[in-house]
Amino acid sequence: MNRAPHRIVCLLVCLLSSACASKQDSVEAVRAVMQAQQAAWNRGDIEGFMDGYERSETTTFVSGDELTQGWQTVLDRYKRRYTSAEQMGMLTFSELDMQPLSPSLVLAEGRWKLIRANDTPHGRFTLLFRQTAKGWRIIHDTKTSATP
Amino acid sequence: MNRAPHRIVCLLVCLLSSACASKQDSVEAVRAVMQAQQAAWNRGDIEGFMDGYERSETTTFVSGDELTQGWQTVLDRYKRRYTSAEQMGMLTFSELDMQPLSPSLVLAEGRWKLIRANDTPHGRFTLLFRQTAKGWRIIHDTKTSATP
Repeated sequence: MNRAPHRIVCLLVCLLSSACASKQDSVEAVRAVMQAQQAAWNRGDIEGFMDGYERSETTTFVSGDELTQGWQTVLDRYKRRYTSAEQMGMLTFSELDMQPLSPSLVLAEGRWKLIRANDTPHGRFTLLFRQTAKGWRIIHDTKTSATP
Repeated sequence: MNRAPHRIVCLLVCLLSSACASKQDSVEAVRAVMQAQQAAWNRGDIEGFMDGYERSETTTFVSGDELTQGWQTVLDRYKRRYTSAEQMGMLTFSELDMQPLSPSLVLAEGRWKLIRANDTPHGRFTLLFRQTAKGWRIIHDTKTSATP
């Protein structure tokens, strides 16, 4: 009996399962990075929050009219703008949606919100994650802000 | 005389040239789509402008606190917000930067500005272009706005 067709079907099923598992893995890995970022921010740890970004000269943060490039420059910007626990407030991400674009790229979007004593700035974000040697990291971040 | 090493070098040069040419082609194609969008907008042709976006249910536009999904829904949003030539104003894109992410994906960013009689709203954009059967099209658009 010729088992070739059976083997081809098995091979296809294996390949498809493997591709699906890999997509699921990347989405879970990206989710874990974002959870770690949220936790770091909420304990006042900006450097820990910045671990979610790739340590590269090309890492980019876009917000309002401003584009900031380079991991260190993005860190400096956060440190300059958030100098106290009161300014940092309590960060939450919500309505997360992850879209694998390729085996090494995931597009993540959702809402961000800071709960602070006197205001609750919020908006949306579009993140591009790349699989690096150190794990999944943000290479491009665009943040929008709701008009207050 | 053994010509094998010479042939291998030739092959590598050809492959590299071809990869570079392909990247250059994608960047030029994306630039052409954006120029066509700008021209369409400035003749009051919102449908022509929308030709730059992929005609898909998943095409996404993010701005402020709002996420709009689906080509038709994005078109409807533009039509609702810009009902006259005065509201549309004169659109310019500037400081364009294109980054090929894969053979079929390009990240494009830059500044947008509307010059109108009474105001000049402006900000930045992050576009994700995909090579589709109809050419390079925007699949994801995140627009930030400068605080007036």
